[in-house]
Amino acid sequence: MALRTASEYKESLRDGRSVFFRGQKVADVTTHPVIRIAVEHAALEYMLPQDPRFRSLAVVEENGEVYNRLYQIPRDGDDLRRRSELIAAITREGAAYPVLLKEIGTEALFALHMVAHLLAGRGKPQYLERVERYYRHCRDNDLALSLAQTDVKGDRSLGPGAQEHPDYYVRKVEERSDGIIVRGAKVHTSLSTNANELIVFPTRLMRPGDEAYAISFAMPLNTPRLKLIASPHGSDPKDPIEHPISARRKMMETLTVFDDVFVPNERVFLNGEVDFAGPLAINFVRFHRFTAVSYKLPLLELLAGAGWAIAEANGISGAGHVRDKLTQLAAYHTIALGLLHRAAAACTIEYGIAVPNTLLVNVAKYHFAHNYHQAVQIVQDLAGGLLVTAPAAEDLTSEATREYIRRFLGGRKGTDAEQRLRLLYLISDMTASDYGGYQEVLAVHAEGGFEAEKLQMYREYDFGTVAAYARKLAGI
Amino acid sequence: MALRTASEYKESLRDGRSVFFRGQKVADVTTHPVIRIAVEHAALEYMLPQDPRFRSLAVVEENGEVYNRLYQIPRDGDDLRRRSELIAAITREGAAYPVLLKEIGTEALFALHMVAHLLAGRGKPQYLERVERYYRHCRDNDLALSLAQTDVKGDRSLGPGAQEHPDYYVRKVEERSDGIIVRGAKVHTSLSTNANELIVFPTRLMRPGDEAYAISFAMPLNTPRLKLIASPHGSDPKDPIEHPISARRKMMETLTVFDDVFVPNERVFLNGEVDFAGPLAINFVRFHRFTAVSYKLPLLELLAGAGWAIAEANGISGAGHVRDKLTQLAAYHTIALGLLHRAAAACTIEYGIAVPNTLLVNVAKYHFAHNYHQAVQIVQDLAGGLLVTAPAAEDLTSEATREYIRRFLGGRKGTDAEQRLRLLYLISDMTASDYGGYQEVLAVHAEGGFEAEKLQMYREYDFGTVAAYARKLAGI
Amino acid sequence: MALRTASEYKESLRDGRSVFFRGQKVADVTTHPVIRIAVEHAALEYMLPQDPRFRSLAVVEENGEVYNRLYQIPRDGDDLRRRSELIAAITREGAAYPVLLKEIGTEALFALHMVAHLLAGRGKPQYLERVERYYRHCRDNDLALSLAQTDVKGDRSLGPGAQEHPDYYVRKVEERSDGIIVRGAKVHTSLSTNANELIVFPTRLMRPGDEAYAISFAMPLNTPRLKLIASPHGSDPKDPIEHPISARRKMMETLTVFDDVFVPNERVFLNGEVDFAGPLAINFVRFHRFTAVSYKLPLLELLAGAGWAIAEANGISGAGHVRDKLTQLAAYHTIALGLLHRAAAACTIEYGIAVPNTLLVNVAKYHFAHNYHQAVQIVQDLAGGLLVTAPAAEDLTSEATREYIRRFLGGRKGTDAEQRLRLLYLISDMTASDYGGYQEVLAVHAEGGFEAEKLQMYREYDFGTVAAYARKLAGI
Amino acid sequence: MALRTASEYKESLRDGRSVFFRGQKVADVTTHPVIRIAVEHAALEYMLPQDPRFRSLAVVEENGEVYNRLYQIPRDGDDLRRRSELIAAITREGAAYPVLLKEIGTEALFALHMVAHLLAGRGKPQYLERVERYYRHCRDNDLALSLAQTDVKGDRSLGPGAQEHPDYYVRKVEERSDGIIVRGAKVHTSLSTNANELIVFPTRLMRPGDEAYAISFAMPLNTPRLKLIASPHGSDPKDPIEHPISARRKMMETLTVFDDVFVPNERVFLNGEVDFAGPLAINFVRFHRFTAVSYKLPLLELLAGAGWAIAEANGISGAGHVRDKLTQLAAYHTIALGLLHRAAAACTIEYGIAVPNTLLVNVAKYHFAHNYHQAVQIVQDLAGGLLVTAPAAEDLTSEATREYIRRFLGGRKGTDAEQRLRLLYLISDMTASDYGGYQEVLAVHAEGGFEAEKLQMYREYDFGTVAAYARKLAGI
Repeated sequence: MALRTASEYKESLRDGRSVFFRGQKVADVTTHPVIRIAVEHAALEYMLPQDPRFRSLAVVEENGEVYNRLYQIPRDGDDLRRRSELIAAITREGAAYPVLLKEIGTEALFALHMVAHLLAGRGKPQYLERVERYYRHCRDNDLALSLAQTDVKGDRSLGPGAQEHPDYYVRKVEERSDGIIVRGAKVHTSLSTNANELIVFPTRLMRPGDEAYAISFAMPLNTPRLKLIASPHGSDPKDPIEHPISARRKMMETLTVFDDVFVPNERVFLNGEVDFAGPLAINFVRFHRFTAVSYKLPLLELLAGAGWAIAEANGISGAGHVRDKLTQLAAYHTIALGLLHRAAAACTIEYGIAVPNTLLVNVAKYHFAHNYHQAVQIVQDLAGGLLVTAPAAEDLTSEATREYIRRFLGGRKGTDAEQRLRLLYLISDMTASDYGGYQEVLAVHAEGGFEAEKLQMYREYDFGTVAAYARKLAGI
Repeated sequence: MALRTASEYKESLRDGRSVFFRGQKVADVTTHPVIRIAVEHAALEYMLPQDPRFRSLAVVEENGEVYNRLYQIPRDGDDLRRRSELIAAITREGAAYPVLLKEIGTEALFALHMVAHLLAGRGKPQYLERVERYYRHCRDNDLALSLAQTDVKGDRSLGPGAQEHPDYYVRKVEERSDGIIVRGAKVHTSLSTNANELIVFPTRLMRPGDEAYAISFAMPLNTPRLKLIASPHGSDPKDPIEHPISARRKMMETLTVFDDVFVPNERVFLNGEVDFAGPLAINFVRFHRFTAVSYKLPLLELLAGAGWAIAEANGISGAGHVRDKLTQLAAYHTIALGLLHRAAAACTIEYGIAVPNTLLVNVAKYHFAHNYHQAVQIVQDLAGGLLVTAPAAEDLTSEATREYIRRFLGGRKGTDAEQRLRLLYLISDMTASDYGGYQEVLAVHAEGGFEAEKLQMYREYDFGTVAAYARKLAGI
Repeated sequence: MALRTASEYKESLRDGRSVFFRGQKVADVTTHPVIRIAVEHAALEYMLPQDPRFRSLAVVEENGEVYNRLYQIPRDGDDLRRRSELIAAITREGAAYPVLLKEIGTEALFALHMVAHLLAGRGKPQYLERVERYYRHCRDNDLALSLAQTDVKGDRSLGPGAQEHPDYYVRKVEERSDGIIVRGAKVHTSLSTNANELIVFPTRLMRPGDEAYAISFAMPLNTPRLKLIASPHGSDPKDPIEHPISARRKMMETLTVFDDVFVPNERVFLNGEVDFAGPLAINFVRFHRFTAVSYKLPLLELLAGAGWAIAEANGISGAGHVRDKLTQLAAYHTIALGLLHRAAAACTIEYGIAVPNTLLVNVAKYHFAHNYHQAVQIVQDLAGGLLVTAPAAEDLTSEATREYIRRFLGGRKGTDAEQRLRLLYLISDMTASDYGGYQEVLAVHAEGGFEAEKLQMYREYDFGTVAAYARKLAGI
Repeated sequence: MALRTASEYKESLRDGRSVFFRGQKVADVTTHPVIRIAVEHAALEYMLPQDPRFRSLAVVEENGEVYNRLYQIPRDGDDLRRRSELIAAITREGAAYPVLLKEIGTEALFALHMVAHLLAGRGKPQYLERVERYYRHCRDNDLALSLAQTDVKGDRSLGPGAQEHPDYYVRKVEERSDGIIVRGAKVHTSLSTNANELIVFPTRLMRPGDEAYAISFAMPLNTPRLKLIASPHGSDPKDPIEHPISARRKMMETLTVFDDVFVPNERVFLNGEVDFAGPLAINFVRFHRFTAVSYKLPLLELLAGAGWAIAEANGISGAGHVRDKLTQLAAYHTIALGLLHRAAAACTIEYGIAVPNTLLVNVAKYHFAHNYHQAVQIVQDLAGGLLVTAPAAEDLTSEATREYIRRFLGGRKGTDAEQRLRLLYLISDMTASDYGGYQEVLAVHAEGGFEAEKLQMYREYDFGTVAAYARKLAGI
């Protein structure tokens, strides 16, 4: 076991993977002008464990060996709490931009363990052995992980078998003695351009007849016939003063194509057991939304903090309506944080793994997601129209303009024009840019959309007990 | 020390107190047609400790003596959690109608302890001795408590001294060697008709010049010249089938008049120390809003439970919009519960007393309060117009009408007309009656209104830290 | 033709109708302690035309004859506008409590005209003749009308034919040469206790196989075997000072039972034409929701006005949050009023009848309905907890209490205790009483619930045009 | 009089104006890579009058002369309605991107007329003459206009005279016989880079002592010592397929610096009359918010249309929650449109000028603005995460990727991958890009922020009448 360094991580990405950006094959992701930003940002996950400030949080020592805490299988609420704190710390260091290079993958590994236990109980012990070996392989080599889950889906009202063509969900097209051949594509695959391993999950529950689609497996990202077509969203070059976050922070997503890819048996974790596709997806998301709220916390801190700072700079922090709006931001953050901590404390232990309270996690995630745009509106309101009408960073230094800027764009006494503009640039970057749009869409869709979260809440809430109470009071 | 029985409690109320109802002096509150309902309801607080199902939750054993857990000074988060559970249990037994016969008073006692410690630190040890003696007196005699806090206030934009006349806030009009004479009136005094002791608090912070108003004291409710003018709201006789809650449940509020009442020194807990009026009010409310959310939980259970049960009865529980609405009720309840538990766990210890996390408590309380009307709307929506157009309870039995009712008002197969009507009566009682209005107004105003809660959140949230984070990211 | 007086109207109700209240047959609705309040309130519709202040608005002169404007078939937007203003004026005189004694019935007559025209176009001219004759009968005798539409429905997820028993929707059980026999029951029938004529409509669209349920007809309210079982909601005696609206205002609803009632052919307006049940229901509601918003306007005025008046009385009208809340009430009212006026101006003419713009009407109605509880919350917030804790009206005069009340419950300088209490009583009556609950449930359910309104908006909005615009901009 | 062509307009911009972009002087705005986009977009205002489809709407004939309808002083509700329809038509042609090249300026001219009439009534007729001459100059030469109003403000809690330095509001620094010298800067000046004339207004009411700040004037945009420092927001080059709107549409804003600029008397419209600064600002905004809602209509159409189209493409348009969300978009649009039409019809005539109903306009504007982010959230929700994870436009054609895209990213049968991607690109451009952020910030801040709109509503609503009604019902 070992903790890799950031350079080892980056070096490991020069492995011949097939990444395409704007129609072109990418020769080396670590030097590509866009993807390299994502690589550098993701490298935070290898830097924190080396940083004395974070070492005790980020590193686990077990039997004389060390590994990254994100790989630690949580055994109780405290483990979950520390995992959550580590995720928040990483993201905080990453300017509230998602990092997630091991988070999502380890959640997938936790879910694989749970379902493999289930399958072992149904007479299929081989999956558990494979999962445990694969887990140790990833953990002991300190690998970076990506998860491909969301199928392209075609007509979203139809299941896999009812689509116009059979490849709208990833499926097994051939069973061989030594493994399987898979075909199809996944969307929204985060981190695939710059992780080491790709884990693949079914996107939803499957029904009898869907056997070919009820598959889960893993592979290195340089596997032949695996194609990663990257999204260009938010990839235009950005001025680092005007875009203090997004000029230096990036996460890549791909359309991930399995063009008849071979997967050896050792890396197949589900193979036609239709009843277990749903549990795999669900168990994953039970961890994934806990992570989601954890990594959103620095963003919520930033909204409240930027709102407060710009209100101060603008000289409006004494106004009643301003306090009211700041209080809304504070409450928004506090609800997410409070429910998250409670979800860890109220965990259940399943197959020895601590699972955060599913109801609380979904409520916290939905609360975050559904109110995000309103929080953005508040911060934009406090900041003012200069968010989209302010002069350029160059105007701060150009001989022709700098005196005007410095003279006219100061704020409240004590806040000079540059300070105020930098705050405005920060808020503009967060809320009124490509990156702002990215965060809005993430709020709505990442880790499952509103309807998925509501369905989960509906299922987890104990309506039976409260309905019995109501009926008793009604005298029936 | 001893636990009183319900009859001992009721007997203790025949003490000559001056209660007025609709302009008439009440001879005996335990037999008055309205107030007796409140007495019976409040007696729950004496019944639960005697009930084996609740004894371990409701009773504390200490040094071989027993007393009601509500009197237990919380020392850690677990104590707070148990206190909260007891409050919820009492209210659940009370059909989600507030009981509160010891809750509010003990919160006041906790706050008095804290401020008396503060005062002792400033060279005034006498208050702490008085508070401790008074606390033991109440606890050891298992007394029922009422708190008078909200002054009548006159022009609410003005402080005590700036009013049209000086009695709009309760004040000391005479200092004597053995005690003080107080004058003024308090509104919204809950439980005063049927408690044993009345504790009096200032309603707000005081400023130099307000010395006469910066007072706190206690007295038995039969003290001469103390007048209790009861509110008639919701006191019309009600059919117990049509009003399954409010026909049998009641809490009384009074205008509480101190018509130059003498208070012996032993019962004076603040006497002109203007700087301590605010802390007393604030510390009280830190406990009081924790209690507030605790006693609201059964109401939130009932909203979700009644919504679910009537949706089932009406045959609409499969509709997407119905699930969506039920999920909103579930989330509403879950947020309150989750934040409450987290507030207990995240308590601070001050002078040896565990205080629930003030930020979380205020967020939880505000979340409950601000969304209550919307939750009511959802339940009314699910139930249907019969809430206010249904036939009478008598129509279920009258020979002239019963066959029509039974034939036409059934619901989904398996739900007969009487079952459905009883559910509708329950929801109508909860949401479309005098009592429904009472709950709405309580949500808005009890334990402090929206603006008070928002102010507290604003003050407690750590804007400094998050603003520093924003400024750092902005590069300033 | 003639305009009846209020006494003529009242006299006409002594006609032997079968009304039941709390299981008892009512001998005379004009003297029954509860129903008489509804009779007196409804009589406003006969008083306004006699009142010089309202005569020109309330009375139409045509060919030397006069009749009530509510009977006027609207021919253009101005007619709709005046009809709306008359409805608002009547309700305003009625303390914002719904009156509706001719409104609903005339809307039904307008819809009957439209569908009868449609049926005439399909070769069934007899219905149009009957409708026209019946319309003139009602108009020329200035009759009071009630409409029975909502079936009892049983399992609301099932249609008429799929229910546990066949009588969950009103149906024809026998066809005779001179008429039909009908059986079943309707809920929520407003005004039936004190109108002259009952018009019966199907509640929803019908499908082939539902012929027996696709019926519409009318009858006098004293028709044999017609039974009216009144709801007791809000019928407890009320102090007129504490309940300045509901002590004197009332509308009755009944469960309306057709216990094999004979209807002569002349009064049958639909008889098995399943394709026309839906259009009848829909066309009715196109007028009915226009009326709905019209009669809600005084209520919205009252919410804003009471909010303002009590904020003044409490001395808080200068606070920023108070202005914010008052502004919300103002906007709430203004949106309803503005959309209503626009809906009249944007009417369509169908069969010579002006129909208010259906999309705008539904948006206006939904906007009113969905935000009502929030408006109530605001007014309760502005008023304070005295809404449910204030002393009684008797306390204002009782020798034992009046001095305390007058001294302590005054408001801002210039507002004495009685004035303030009367405002509080008004708001308590409007928002925190049986009547307050009635208004909330009406907001949610009267004139169709939220889902019905949303469905109508969805259908009426021109998605095709805007989608074409989007596709054009997308380049497809 | 004449209508200029688009080329004449563009030619007129080569006039030596001082525009700075990213610290550099711009040689020619019509060829500058960013500003030329804004020029081409704004040229729409010269193209529509030449287009037979729009000529009758866009051109007014008066006494044998023609001019652009935007210059027409509205005399009644119909004029306002046509103005509104023209503004919507221009914006619709402009892909829902604001054009506004004459709208804002003519509103300013209307307000100048009104205040000049007022001033004439106070014995200062010279302003009216100047305004009328200037109006004819602009109209008859078909000039493009820009308005500079918002001062830089410094500490926004302080008035002009209380700031850290005196130039935080534009002021007169010298009075000369032939004119005045002005100094200061304005922010958010739209269209200044590519209009002909700049009109300058005070940003707020002024008080005695603020005389130097109570000034209004106009000048050509190439006036010496006038400096325009453009904002770079949203100016990165964009792929026209991925950004179908913003790649071809642009509006420029500047920090507009008056570096001791001379204004001849003829162009001075207010000069120290402090009481008239407020009325000028207010009267302007009464028109400006009417324009605001008018030009937002195509955007609201586009949100609803794009939401519908992508729901269809994704195969989810049959789901209940999808219909619910689409209905919200429909209602959102309908409320804005309905209130706008009603505001025109309910106009008042002041000094012969038709002014849209101020209350309705503010309610409509606030309703639009406050709910914009929620509408964005809905459209993002319907579209899916591909908004920010979709492949690039080049991937549609690159040999390496196109087959994968076409095979995997199709939608519902009948929607191929390119159609679906183009819809997603459209929605991403509208809601998840720099331009999406621009629209959000415009919603919040353009034409005055939330608090300004609320204040206006509060002032315009007739609380007196409704409070009187409440008091009457309360019996006081």
